[in-house]
Amino acid sequence: MDKSDKRIDLNCDIGEGFGVYRTGEDERLLDVVTSANIACGFHAGDPATMLRTVRLCAERGVAIGAHPGLPDMTGFGRREMAISPQEAYEMTVYQLGALYGFVRAEGAVMRHVKPHGALYNMAAADAGLAEAIAEAVRRVDAALVLVGLAGSELVRAGAAAGLATAAEAFADRRYRQDGTLVPRREPGAMIGDAAEAVGQVLRLAAAGQAQTVCVHGDGPHALEFASRVRQGLQQAGWRLAPVAGEA
Amino acid sequence: MDKSDKRIDLNCDIGEGFGVYRTGEDERLLDVVTSANIACGFHAGDPATMLRTVRLCAERGVAIGAHPGLPDMTGFGRREMAISPQEAYEMTVYQLGALYGFVRAEGAVMRHVKPHGALYNMAAADAGLAEAIAEAVRRVDAALVLVGLAGSELVRAGAAAGLATAAEAFADRRYRQDGTLVPRREPGAMIGDAAEAVGQVLRLAAAGQAQTVCVHGDGPHALEFASRVRQGLQQAGWRLAPVAGEA
Amino acid sequence: MDKSDKRIDLNCDIGEGFGVYRTGEDERLLDVVTSANIACGFHAGDPATMLRTVRLCAERGVAIGAHPGLPDMTGFGRREMAISPQEAYEMTVYQLGALYGFVRAEGAVMRHVKPHGALYNMAAADAGLAEAIAEAVRRVDAALVLVGLAGSELVRAGAAAGLATAAEAFADRRYRQDGTLVPRREPGAMIGDAAEAVGQVLRLAAAGQAQTVCVHGDGPHALEFASRVRQGLQQAGWRLAPVAGEA
Amino acid sequence: MDKSDKRIDLNCDIGEGFGVYRTGEDERLLDVVTSANIACGFHAGDPATMLRTVRLCAERGVAIGAHPGLPDMTGFGRREMAISPQEAYEMTVYQLGALYGFVRAEGAVMRHVKPHGALYNMAAADAGLAEAIAEAVRRVDAALVLVGLAGSELVRAGAAAGLATAAEAFADRRYRQDGTLVPRREPGAMIGDAAEAVGQVLRLAAAGQAQTVCVHGDGPHALEFASRVRQGLQQAGWRLAPVAGEA
Repeated sequence: MDKSDKRIDLNCDIGEGFGVYRTGEDERLLDVVTSANIACGFHAGDPATMLRTVRLCAERGVAIGAHPGLPDMTGFGRREMAISPQEAYEMTVYQLGALYGFVRAEGAVMRHVKPHGALYNMAAADAGLAEAIAEAVRRVDAALVLVGLAGSELVRAGAAAGLATAAEAFADRRYRQDGTLVPRREPGAMIGDAAEAVGQVLRLAAAGQAQTVCVHGDGPHALEFASRVRQGLQQAGWRLAPVAGEA
Repeated sequence: MDKSDKRIDLNCDIGEGFGVYRTGEDERLLDVVTSANIACGFHAGDPATMLRTVRLCAERGVAIGAHPGLPDMTGFGRREMAISPQEAYEMTVYQLGALYGFVRAEGAVMRHVKPHGALYNMAAADAGLAEAIAEAVRRVDAALVLVGLAGSELVRAGAAAGLATAAEAFADRRYRQDGTLVPRREPGAMIGDAAEAVGQVLRLAAAGQAQTVCVHGDGPHALEFASRVRQGLQQAGWRLAPVAGEA
Repeated sequence: MDKSDKRIDLNCDIGEGFGVYRTGEDERLLDVVTSANIACGFHAGDPATMLRTVRLCAERGVAIGAHPGLPDMTGFGRREMAISPQEAYEMTVYQLGALYGFVRAEGAVMRHVKPHGALYNMAAADAGLAEAIAEAVRRVDAALVLVGLAGSELVRAGAAAGLATAAEAFADRRYRQDGTLVPRREPGAMIGDAAEAVGQVLRLAAAGQAQTVCVHGDGPHALEFASRVRQGLQQAGWRLAPVAGEA
Repeated sequence: MDKSDKRIDLNCDIGEGFGVYRTGEDERLLDVVTSANIACGFHAGDPATMLRTVRLCAERGVAIGAHPGLPDMTGFGRREMAISPQEAYEMTVYQLGALYGFVRAEGAVMRHVKPHGALYNMAAADAGLAEAIAEAVRRVDAALVLVGLAGSELVRAGAAAGLATAAEAFADRRYRQDGTLVPRREPGAMIGDAAEAVGQVLRLAAAGQAQTVCVHGDGPHALEFASRVRQGLQQAGWRLAPVAGEA
């Protein structure tokens, strides 16, 4: 990615309801972001939600991506599981394919893949899992952009597999000194103040550590938060566009 | 389909294990059939089983098809559910897509779609469900062949949607006078005698009522049964080839 | 039940969230009702939600009941499934037992059973299913009260099995002439006006057709609605108390 | 437990099928063992299988126990998950209760609890999980015997909670020097030779390290294996009886 043009992506996890359950304010959030990571039925999401979400994205020109997770609906894919690289490969192929079905049915395009929750965190630290996920993405569609935590094994494995990659920064999660995220169960994991979040995003973007910024959709002030981050980036001269555009 | 060349397909449902559970003798059955209907994770099947089964089919040149079912693992997709056409559409797109992931990852081709169990039976009789499934198939991949019970709403809806279709006959299920299957829970639903099964198949094939014949993989004598049906067809001058070859 | 003392129960379905998903305003609704029907993990609910809900009920003195449903989380147990009486028996025993675990762990008491959604409707009309559910309740705990639609097969089967039963009326659902509910998917299924709902409740109660009245917890005005029904009943001289008190 | 009378229990995991899937030779294995650990629907098992298995045990006088596992049907509960002690508590209560439903419905008695797979291994090493499981058992039924790996945190936590406990040895799993099991994915994890298995069992029993011996039901020679272990123990003067008898 060429950073000189100050281009950056704003992404959110979306379509994470299930059956009668809804989360967040999906429709309005899609007016703010440039990319959407759509749950694929393992940690959240179901066929009806996936179809609706793909349509919402297509209507707005928001880049569509897969958000594969661990098979743990009760735990929302946030509990680490001791899966093998082979299992990571298989569950990634399955979920990418499932979203692909809806993307094809709608005549849309799938642009990127970003693992969810514990799968994302495990793939950030474990080279074997990261390589398996990258290989799954490459074999399903080598034009997909692989999104992972800045500095992670996942981004490294994606690049090694010949994929376009995008390093991600979080607006509302706190970082440790070593660049990893403070786990959700620890105090101070979340940034509640929008100004602090914007400051963190601008700092990481300016340092070239992020091609895409994640705003979460499920907090009480998610929409306002996302809008503030968007404004902050634009005021600092960043142009918002999907990472997938470069693939 | 041109029936003058006496060409017919032999298909089986396959990959219907789950996790540690296996059913049937998948590998050896794939040496007998020309088409395979692979479970997609709703009534049976899981990512590992789907990958293994796609590979087995690709190695043997067996045509790969999706076998989408109702979301009912406990009931193996055999219990009718009051789903709407919209839900039938969504679950078909999801499952076709999921198998598509593995097909793409293996550089293989998906040839056909055959609904499973209660979904198959409901789509045989209910025009709304049949049209929804046909539309799902058409939108995911208009080159797919839609397989349904001979004379069913599903075959009719597939043709109306512009899809290639294949009428299916069963080797080991008994028919009622009206051409529908005797339900599994009724006595006499299954044909246990291979000679009777071969006779039924030859009769239906000769009458032009079947472009594809289903042999089941999960009975105690499944393999011998399938081999006998194959031999019977060949001895009667039928050439065995996938239906998908004509698409 | 002795109707001369004008005693009536007010019940709600509750604990119908799942994992990260919440529905309704469970805590505040429990300040209004006298009985709660707790989801048991098949159509909704999970172990954490069940534990929390049992505790909330125990703290408030709300009578605890099981709310078993069909194994269909995606459809929230609202899609009819062609289950056998044997399967209805087995899934009822399982779910009653699961809730029983939490009730025992909390030193509380389980008072009643009310099937959910499609299972409730199927058991209202199908004598075989109704008898299977009644038998499951009787064998798990013969002191449980079985709650069913007024005039239904379920109430009849419960009485025939020797169980205490309670006929239920709905505050916010419209009835057909024959006493069955207008299905949710039809227009006019729900009563949106509180005054109309209160009127319906008072009419059914006065006619002796209801020992318990259901108020739903998941609409936008659920809490206000429930409070209005409670007030209406009290103003008309009804004393609110759980049905389970008579067992 | 008084070891002087050379009394020992022989247990097996059972009812680990699901829907149409069966594993092992449950009926015949129940003629060999004195205690059975019945899957409760999270890693394996379903209501129909649980009912059938409870009946088989009751008919044969085999002691009935719960075999709760992680919510991971695809992985058969063998993949470790990062659950909290609170989650371990909740899923144990749920599963104990579910089995309790069938035990009550059959007029039988539940005697013991033995966690399954990864939950068993995690509870052997993690004091927090062990205490949560022991507390769940105690609160559901303080008369239950808690079965865990000899020398494990689980046995220790059970005793601390005031429960009767039973230390378990495995006939067909190899041990490391430190008394933990060789993980299944490592070579040499399983003992395939019956004579070696019998020798290991006699050695552990004689050393007082086991009040119960596990034989697995799912290998190709499971039944012969179990019979050989039973014979070996009896010939060495051990009397076979359920651990639960002492509660």
